[in-house]
Amino acid sequence: MSRDPIQDLIARLEQLPGIGRKTATRLAFFLLGAPREYLLGLAGALESVAREVRRCSVCSNFTLEDPCTICSDVTREQDLICVVATPQDLAAVENSGAYRGTYHVLHGLLSPLDGKGPEDITLKRLLDRVQSAKIREVILALSPSVEGEATAAYLSGLLKPHVEAITRIATGVPMGGELEYADRLTLGKALADRRPV
Amino acid sequence: MSRDPIQDLIARLEQLPGIGRKTATRLAFFLLGAPREYLLGLAGALESVAREVRRCSVCSNFTLEDPCTICSDVTREQDLICVVATPQDLAAVENSGAYRGTYHVLHGLLSPLDGKGPEDITLKRLLDRVQSAKIREVILALSPSVEGEATAAYLSGLLKPHVEAITRIATGVPMGGELEYADRLTLGKALADRRPV
Repeated sequence: MSRDPIQDLIARLEQLPGIGRKTATRLAFFLLGAPREYLLGLAGALESVAREVRRCSVCSNFTLEDPCTICSDVTREQDLICVVATPQDLAAVENSGAYRGTYHVLHGLLSPLDGKGPEDITLKRLLDRVQSAKIREVILALSPSVEGEATAAYLSGLLKPHVEAITRIATGVPMGGELEYADRLTLGKALADRRPV
Repeated sequence: MSRDPIQDLIARLEQLPGIGRKTATRLAFFLLGAPREYLLGLAGALESVAREVRRCSVCSNFTLEDPCTICSDVTREQDLICVVATPQDLAAVENSGAYRGTYHVLHGLLSPLDGKGPEDITLKRLLDRVQSAKIREVILALSPSVEGEATAAYLSGLLKPHVEAITRIATGVPMGGELEYADRLTLGKALADRRPV
């Protein structure tokens, strides 16, 4: 890293996802003109995250305490595991208010083309969990993408001997969505998965 | 600020320009998964900037030493001042390699509609400079926008009694630009400012 603090800051900001040289420079100059308290506050927030945030030893979600507040919440159904790819996906499921079980965060999806195999996600921990406790159902809440499908298929083969039920969240026309604008694949899937009313 | 370091970090990132709630959340989760050294490095870079970077007492550009390396460079023409709106604009002029005088950074432009008046930019310092030293020429390198025009007009009235020459950088069709795609205003200005060949 350069010893000029401005160039150094630009170089570091450039490593953030979706931020190129131009945006990094713009951000750096904004920061140069920002109040000192803001800069020190942001620096402190980054340090806090580096120091205090870790992965839950049970579900692998980011947490301040281990196990995390969800895993240690006895009012939640402990024999239900919802498997998600990222902490953001966990937050989305949690925000739906439709789920009161536990989670497992894979921190990625299988993607052979990108060289991401089973050892690159938290598969082993999930297997340990279903082997060491009686799990009634594993819900795969993975995106209906190529990687999501591949990971779901691999996971269900791996977990089947140890779990009563493995399910996958439904794909179909989104609530409030216009049928007219639904894409071909989604509509096809929604038709194939039609349910009696 | 929230005491949850993750929410705290998101809230602080959201204050950056052009970064909304969604991008701030995405960046925060990237940072959560980033190596600890990166987080501490970025925090350190922010602290260095807060601690080491100040404004040059002569030209108001961001600098580590005061006066800055440009102002203290005796090989540059000290009786020439190029007035720019921001440190980024200074960098752009400097990168052109076409200028070897000194600079003055206004840190903004006059914009009555946004409530930005003469006291919000470094006008007084510029006036002090041209009054206390013999300045041969002030070059106004301000954007050809409404605010740039207004600031240039105000500045030339203010500086005229103290400076031999006040000039403005040329506006016209950009080098390498296609005439066909030049906008109406630019082309009109280029025609009005035509020069003998």
